[in-house]
Amino acid sequence: MILPQLTHLASICAKSGVTQAVLSPGSRCAPISLAFIRHPEIHCRTIPDERSAAFIAMGMAQQLQKPVVLVCTSGSASLNYGPAIAEAFYQQIPLLVLTADRPPEWVDQWDGQTIRQEKLYGQHVKESFTFPDEAQLPDQLWHAKRIVKEALVLSKSFPMGPVHINIPVREPFYPLPEEKYAFEVTDLEPPLEIQTGLSTFGEEAIQKIRAQLGKYRKILLLPGQQRPNRAIKTLLAEIIRKRQAVLVTDVISNQVQEGAIIHHDFFIKDPETQKEMAPELIISFGKSILSKAMKQFLRKSQATHWHVQPAGRVPDPFQKLGQIIRVHPEYFLEHFTNEQGPADPAFIQSWSQKNEALRNSIHGLLEKQAFGELLALKRVLVKLPSFGKVHLANSLAVRNVNRLGLPEKDLEIICNRGTSGIDGSTSTAVGCTFTTKENVTLITGDMAFFYDRNAFWHQYQLTNLRVVLFNNHGGGIFRMIEGPAEQPELEEYFETHQKLSAKHLAAEMGFEYRLVQNAAALEDCLETFFQKSLHPKIVEIESSSESNTRTLKILKESIQKYLIDHDL
Amino acid sequence: MILPQLTHLASICAKSGVTQAVLSPGSRCAPISLAFIRHPEIHCRTIPDERSAAFIAMGMAQQLQKPVVLVCTSGSASLNYGPAIAEAFYQQIPLLVLTADRPPEWVDQWDGQTIRQEKLYGQHVKESFTFPDEAQLPDQLWHAKRIVKEALVLSKSFPMGPVHINIPVREPFYPLPEEKYAFEVTDLEPPLEIQTGLSTFGEEAIQKIRAQLGKYRKILLLPGQQRPNRAIKTLLAEIIRKRQAVLVTDVISNQVQEGAIIHHDFFIKDPETQKEMAPELIISFGKSILSKAMKQFLRKSQATHWHVQPAGRVPDPFQKLGQIIRVHPEYFLEHFTNEQGPADPAFIQSWSQKNEALRNSIHGLLEKQAFGELLALKRVLVKLPSFGKVHLANSLAVRNVNRLGLPEKDLEIICNRGTSGIDGSTSTAVGCTFTTKENVTLITGDMAFFYDRNAFWHQYQLTNLRVVLFNNHGGGIFRMIEGPAEQPELEEYFETHQKLSAKHLAAEMGFEYRLVQNAAALEDCLETFFQKSLHPKIVEIESSSESNTRTLKILKESIQKYLIDHDL
Repeated sequence: MILPQLTHLASICAKSGVTQAVLSPGSRCAPISLAFIRHPEIHCRTIPDERSAAFIAMGMAQQLQKPVVLVCTSGSASLNYGPAIAEAFYQQIPLLVLTADRPPEWVDQWDGQTIRQEKLYGQHVKESFTFPDEAQLPDQLWHAKRIVKEALVLSKSFPMGPVHINIPVREPFYPLPEEKYAFEVTDLEPPLEIQTGLSTFGEEAIQKIRAQLGKYRKILLLPGQQRPNRAIKTLLAEIIRKRQAVLVTDVISNQVQEGAIIHHDFFIKDPETQKEMAPELIISFGKSILSKAMKQFLRKSQATHWHVQPAGRVPDPFQKLGQIIRVHPEYFLEHFTNEQGPADPAFIQSWSQKNEALRNSIHGLLEKQAFGELLALKRVLVKLPSFGKVHLANSLAVRNVNRLGLPEKDLEIICNRGTSGIDGSTSTAVGCTFTTKENVTLITGDMAFFYDRNAFWHQYQLTNLRVVLFNNHGGGIFRMIEGPAEQPELEEYFETHQKLSAKHLAAEMGFEYRLVQNAAALEDCLETFFQKSLHPKIVEIESSSESNTRTLKILKESIQKYLIDHDL
Repeated sequence: MILPQLTHLASICAKSGVTQAVLSPGSRCAPISLAFIRHPEIHCRTIPDERSAAFIAMGMAQQLQKPVVLVCTSGSASLNYGPAIAEAFYQQIPLLVLTADRPPEWVDQWDGQTIRQEKLYGQHVKESFTFPDEAQLPDQLWHAKRIVKEALVLSKSFPMGPVHINIPVREPFYPLPEEKYAFEVTDLEPPLEIQTGLSTFGEEAIQKIRAQLGKYRKILLLPGQQRPNRAIKTLLAEIIRKRQAVLVTDVISNQVQEGAIIHHDFFIKDPETQKEMAPELIISFGKSILSKAMKQFLRKSQATHWHVQPAGRVPDPFQKLGQIIRVHPEYFLEHFTNEQGPADPAFIQSWSQKNEALRNSIHGLLEKQAFGELLALKRVLVKLPSFGKVHLANSLAVRNVNRLGLPEKDLEIICNRGTSGIDGSTSTAVGCTFTTKENVTLITGDMAFFYDRNAFWHQYQLTNLRVVLFNNHGGGIFRMIEGPAEQPELEEYFETHQKLSAKHLAAEMGFEYRLVQNAAALEDCLETFFQKSLHPKIVEIESSSESNTRTLKILKESIQKYLIDHDL
């Protein structure tokens, strides 16, 4: 039997611009899945492991910037969506999460695949709706349609995010051969549209903000995680050129450019001892920043902090939040930052000289080190294609890329910094490959990679995917942190030595595979690694956690020495 | 720095009888993990994938019947516990779930690995506590200790289940070399003990229940999922011998025995057309039953239903619940069922003749079929060791074993029928191997097996594990259900053809491996399969979903014909 509320569900989604759905197999969800599969304008894929399915959908929605539909069956299947939903919530990625459910009378009655699904995702969705369990009365059907429309509007409204609809379904689940979905034969009702206005300031407000800004000659511009935005990049370039502020960028800000500070992790210590570097005003926009050293530096400073964000809750990562500016960052940068006089030159120089010194020396200092993950990463970064998507896994991969800095290329950097988990980095990259013909590179470590291996367990081509796997056989990051490295339990309980190599996985999943253990082999591999191919590719760069830790330590020491030698 | 509240946490757990902890690596959780690792009486294991870790802990607690501790780091790690926690909740398995958290001031401030962890598991834990974020004041420390004691008592009280403690932790995370945990040097305070009374009836109540029971001459005894219990088995045997009731058992009841009805799935249809089989009274105890046909049969009947359960919420799976009996099933069976006069002979015969007919014929009828998963399963069941643990994966594996029935052996049958998910069947079996030297056999399908492959991603020996993998390359169960089998989307979206074989996985994880595609190869393999070995073993039995569906259909038809031919 075809349920009219499910026909409308698929129809309203399609009319609201949804084009992609990620389904996981099941009985209870079959009528929901079929409505999407049969809809001519929605492209469906099936991914068996719901944990991966949700991260894959998230990786797609991140690129498409509109809701992707997720459909799973009732019971614990829906709980496997949990990690990706939390990530999407904090990364503000739109998802329409549809969980099939038993009708309410059968919850807690020992029926199979039945749990308490209402409000299942707690505080990590923008809203959680429950579909009416019947839609025979006109008001019930209206209720269902109304929920879909509202859920889509909510998911797409800034800040975007996941919205959950729990959908109780009674048997029979399957349409008879002669039954047709109404959207195949009639034009169903229109969706709910939204027109979003752009927030601007009146003349008086502009003057007031200018007056406030005019008090500061030490301004630090700090873009948080965001997608590439050319207009903002140009405005920031202009600000640097005019030496109006210091621009500090992490790789995840996608705002790395000439003149921006990128090596700060190596040289910031304390605003008390580095008084000339201490800002008076921090202006941020976007989401989180990566650098823990930077956060600690700013928390200890005397600065005030303005955050530019059109709507939504504003965190206070530096414990200095003093002003929330409710416009788009582009509008703010256009109208305000340019208006300031030149900043304190000593402030600008204190940042730029150190950064410049490192930019000139870091790669030379690194080249003197033994071959290991840092040196290998440097070689990989140089060879990245000139455009495309680069996914960085938590935790060491993103930190190492940030240490070394990116070459100037037209790349989008993506990383699950919403919750900073390792659980879905690969699936997110796989989702990304479903939205683009460009090269998608995943730079990952062995823990993140093997954790999320079910990302590859499906029938879809991943031709444009390249995986650069740094395998140090365990959580190498723990050896680099002072605390755990000194515990007798380091090897068994923190690093969790794991012996796997990607060789078997590559054979199983149809990847071209190359194991690399020295510089020459890596150079050779990189010659062709990013070229087009029939199959996706993995290069596994094997190194030892001990040696990597030693290299990083020596590199940090030589950088410190270099800075002292150059009076910086 | 060693936090006193964490020292007490480990100490109280140990003194309350906790002996096992399953840890997953992380920074924020390090001080919690270290407290358990350093405690001399608690055995710790590290499992990287939290989804598997939680099912492994559940598989252990299921055997031990006392709480196993789970420790994970903050952020999405904790959400990966979700599926196992729901399963433990519905299967009433005790777990003490400890999630590390940032201190409250850093939640929602864009710090890494930080989500909204309070009450994270919603309605699928018995309680969710939040540890004090500091324990410098005596009352704060008492609060922490009080929470641990109460959580343990709750988790162990009938019906047992998972209890969550969210534990905010501030840096520094690691003890200095000279610091010692207090439990290493002093005797910390005692735990909270519980003495549980046994509920009994007075003489008047006994007479009243006997009088009620005396009205029924058609009693159906229906044990739900439960662990083996010799006393109950003996009582049930006595009841069958005296022909006082019909005993219907699923494999998950662990009460299969001579005289019990086991083949009911093949012959029950409708109490309207099978009037002589319709019970007047259903008496159940334990948890869920497996047979959907049985549920539907009883829902359509005119029977009333008594459920025997000492405490906790009682579901109404047959829509007939009329009496809840608050004593232990053993007490009930001892005091009441024996007292009844013999049941209606026609009622007894209508069940036992059909069951007997099938018991005599099913294996012969099956032997006439082509080699496939049913016939292979029959051969495997015969060769199972005479004692040990048998884990059945959802969904086809458990259904097929139930169809064929088990040989009379001293086996415990285990299956995740709390939520009936496929997501943790393998990990649950792996957890089981950590508690016993007996043979642990996992009978599984390819979807459940590959879904949960991270069950093997760790450094622990699984010598006594035997995996019987039925690989039909997809969700073969969907082809057997009338609805999906008729949809044009069957192959792509329901069966989700997956090409994997366990060969690569076996090589990667160090299993002895054998691929079997015909009866002779299976016989040969089974000769030694269950014998002791240095490594765990997988036999992969490959069959085609089309052929399996055909076989099951023919088998059902020949059974129907056999029953008709024999006037049953």
